[in-house]
Amino acid sequence: MIKENVVTLQHFVSVEELTNEEVLALLARGEEFKAGAKFEGLEKQTFACNLFFENSTRTHNSFHIAECKLGLDVMEFDVSTSAVSKGETLYDTILTLGALGVEVCVIRHNQEHYYEELIKSPNIDCAIVNGGDGSGQHPSQCALDLMTIQEEFGTFEGLKVAIVGDLFHSRVARSNMQMLKRLGAELYFAAPEVWYPSEEFDQYGTYLPIDEIVDKVDVMMMLRVQHERHDGTVFLSKEDYHRKYGLTVERAKRMKPTAIIMHPAPVNRDAELADELVESEQSRIVTQMTNGVYVRMAILEAVLRGRNCLK
Amino acid sequence: MIKENVVTLQHFVSVEELTNEEVLALLARGEEFKAGAKFEGLEKQTFACNLFFENSTRTHNSFHIAECKLGLDVMEFDVSTSAVSKGETLYDTILTLGALGVEVCVIRHNQEHYYEELIKSPNIDCAIVNGGDGSGQHPSQCALDLMTIQEEFGTFEGLKVAIVGDLFHSRVARSNMQMLKRLGAELYFAAPEVWYPSEEFDQYGTYLPIDEIVDKVDVMMMLRVQHERHDGTVFLSKEDYHRKYGLTVERAKRMKPTAIIMHPAPVNRDAELADELVESEQSRIVTQMTNGVYVRMAILEAVLRGRNCLK
Amino acid sequence: MIKENVVTLQHFVSVEELTNEEVLALLARGEEFKAGAKFEGLEKQTFACNLFFENSTRTHNSFHIAECKLGLDVMEFDVSTSAVSKGETLYDTILTLGALGVEVCVIRHNQEHYYEELIKSPNIDCAIVNGGDGSGQHPSQCALDLMTIQEEFGTFEGLKVAIVGDLFHSRVARSNMQMLKRLGAELYFAAPEVWYPSEEFDQYGTYLPIDEIVDKVDVMMMLRVQHERHDGTVFLSKEDYHRKYGLTVERAKRMKPTAIIMHPAPVNRDAELADELVESEQSRIVTQMTNGVYVRMAILEAVLRGRNCLK
Repeated sequence: MIKENVVTLQHFVSVEELTNEEVLALLARGEEFKAGAKFEGLEKQTFACNLFFENSTRTHNSFHIAECKLGLDVMEFDVSTSAVSKGETLYDTILTLGALGVEVCVIRHNQEHYYEELIKSPNIDCAIVNGGDGSGQHPSQCALDLMTIQEEFGTFEGLKVAIVGDLFHSRVARSNMQMLKRLGAELYFAAPEVWYPSEEFDQYGTYLPIDEIVDKVDVMMMLRVQHERHDGTVFLSKEDYHRKYGLTVERAKRMKPTAIIMHPAPVNRDAELADELVESEQSRIVTQMTNGVYVRMAILEAVLRGRNCLK
Repeated sequence: MIKENVVTLQHFVSVEELTNEEVLALLARGEEFKAGAKFEGLEKQTFACNLFFENSTRTHNSFHIAECKLGLDVMEFDVSTSAVSKGETLYDTILTLGALGVEVCVIRHNQEHYYEELIKSPNIDCAIVNGGDGSGQHPSQCALDLMTIQEEFGTFEGLKVAIVGDLFHSRVARSNMQMLKRLGAELYFAAPEVWYPSEEFDQYGTYLPIDEIVDKVDVMMMLRVQHERHDGTVFLSKEDYHRKYGLTVERAKRMKPTAIIMHPAPVNRDAELADELVESEQSRIVTQMTNGVYVRMAILEAVLRGRNCLK
Repeated sequence: MIKENVVTLQHFVSVEELTNEEVLALLARGEEFKAGAKFEGLEKQTFACNLFFENSTRTHNSFHIAECKLGLDVMEFDVSTSAVSKGETLYDTILTLGALGVEVCVIRHNQEHYYEELIKSPNIDCAIVNGGDGSGQHPSQCALDLMTIQEEFGTFEGLKVAIVGDLFHSRVARSNMQMLKRLGAELYFAAPEVWYPSEEFDQYGTYLPIDEIVDKVDVMMMLRVQHERHDGTVFLSKEDYHRKYGLTVERAKRMKPTAIIMHPAPVNRDAELADELVESEQSRIVTQMTNGVYVRMAILEAVLRGRNCLK
């Protein structure tokens, strides 16, 4: 066990690079922050910079709030008015921010594994926190999802979790299935066949129609239909998608009474999920957002410790 | 009378929902802030978020400054890089911000009455401050206009106020005519006929040509020609508009020596107003901007009190 | 000499308006900040606003950090969502910000000498700091370049400095050649003939092919090929530009062992400069960025003193 939930990280880019102990300690630290634990404080004035090359509301704003709560000076990097518009690369941008004295860069980028070049370079002088890389990983979303599940059930061991929807394009699915399996959960996948990459996913769980899953699992984790990552060909109408693959009101009635509904949001209401389920009793979608702030505080604290920025 | 100008509001969305006492107490509190009054302080770290779906310089920046002066942590919501670009609704956006812990959202939106759905929902956990809704209301602009008039004349009772220009599209006109009438002022309207919705406005004041008004009133409140709300058909050139409906240098000479010129800005110089009048002795346009910061501090304080955020 | 590096400025818009003593005192103050000197502090809560009408990463973010380090409340003016999009002029925008209580505006604008109208007006109530005006001046870049050279060589007297590349469009070149000459350096220019405005530049230095310069000088100051200021006609491929006018690895080998490489960045790698030289031992490009923060603190401190904002 990690003592007093003190995790030290150089970067936070993918769940694969974290031990189970580190993940659990981050969740525990997130709960401490949620319960009102005081942050020990920064050694001196410290700058964080958020660089979102893809649209975001939740991840972006919750990192912003988490940074403010840790007393960081927050810089919002506006991609469209930066030298990126003159053709400057991500590498040269981060090299610059490090040279200016920024300690942590939170980055969302459409290129998978964008962070590898950055964390390998001896000249990049700041910590990288991955806010999502293309269809790759979304490790801070994974952390908040785990925190929400753990709050509910106390454990992951033997828990039955369904991940439902656009598995192919989902970085949330990739991060979550790896961590949930490692932590002892049993996974089920439901998805249109074209969105189910069996070679990649079969090793993690069982692929079944949603109707054979919905009454068995403890967690219905619905994924967003990511229109922005598709090539424009819509193979199903919203209504058809909802009827065939979505969590309808009828299906929700078959859920175990103790089971919960999750979604990384933004929700396409009445597509992945019936409109009335979003804010329903069994939904933890709002709780997920709230937890995101606290677990991101824990993540940032860990990389700030890695940078020797803490008191 | 409201004791010591202590106003408590759940939201601040429209002048119709405020009593005269509340409005006057907000103005008085604005004057206190302008005179250097200390703000009592926030109970704990508190977040405000500004969401401007329509362009703004004055309202946006003056809310930002007012928020900083109250010690709030200010978040600027960038619509173009948020999940709104993925189709997320305003409702789900504000639901999210509330879940993240934001206490106050200042919103400008092109949809009239956008706020009704928000303030009715039991799940939206933050105060809404209206920074302008389409051609509906602009209540914080109204408050700063009233503050500027009261500073000048000490009272509204019997004051003669002309509102001149694009009345049809003006949320400023709508908010101001209601409040000014309620506070005892006498209203005059001058406008091109196509921009004068007589059914709505006749009950509030008298419609007359500008030349029959300019020498009688205490306040010449000029409205902006809102090209961005028109359908592209310009019925008059700038020069013709100025000559027929604008405050020309010649007309300004006929004003009472004690009368003042107001404009919500941005001014189309030499359209609504002769260029040299904008920063002239009788103009209060710059004062209006300055007052905006202080009265918005009073407004924010009132909703923060409603959220139990004050010490 | 200026006592204890205490410079007082009303505005900071062009190197021509600064004495040598003022420039040297700003550099010395920058070094003090870099060495950890404490800033004496602001009299009261003070607002700075950054208005970048042209893209920027380094200048923008380093002013932002410098402002935060001085304890200023920083506002980022988003041009695209401001009333500028409704046609409001720069003059009226700055008039507004001054009326709202902003003390310092840092402005980058594509119009040369944009600042003249602002600093002449009696109604503009804030200090102007020029972050670059079209192809005119870039005085804060000049200051950080001088700081970097002085750190290296201790003096400017007799120093041989080459400025190489797109001299015609470069505000960096214009600011630097004036100041370097005034401070006693000897200048050399290398550039494609179409980018060498001999009438303007001949009085400041000697125009020679890069191969006749590279082994003689102490500083190789490479300029960015500013595609964004060209009219679309590319007269040379990147490879040809590099071979004829760039600092190739071969040319770099002929440099004096004590000579340094500078570039305002963003670098077009393998155009102005070979990729492997950017982060090489002789390069001071990263140091330039770091120094930018500290010298901008000195500049801002000087104008804040001019506004009576300091303790």
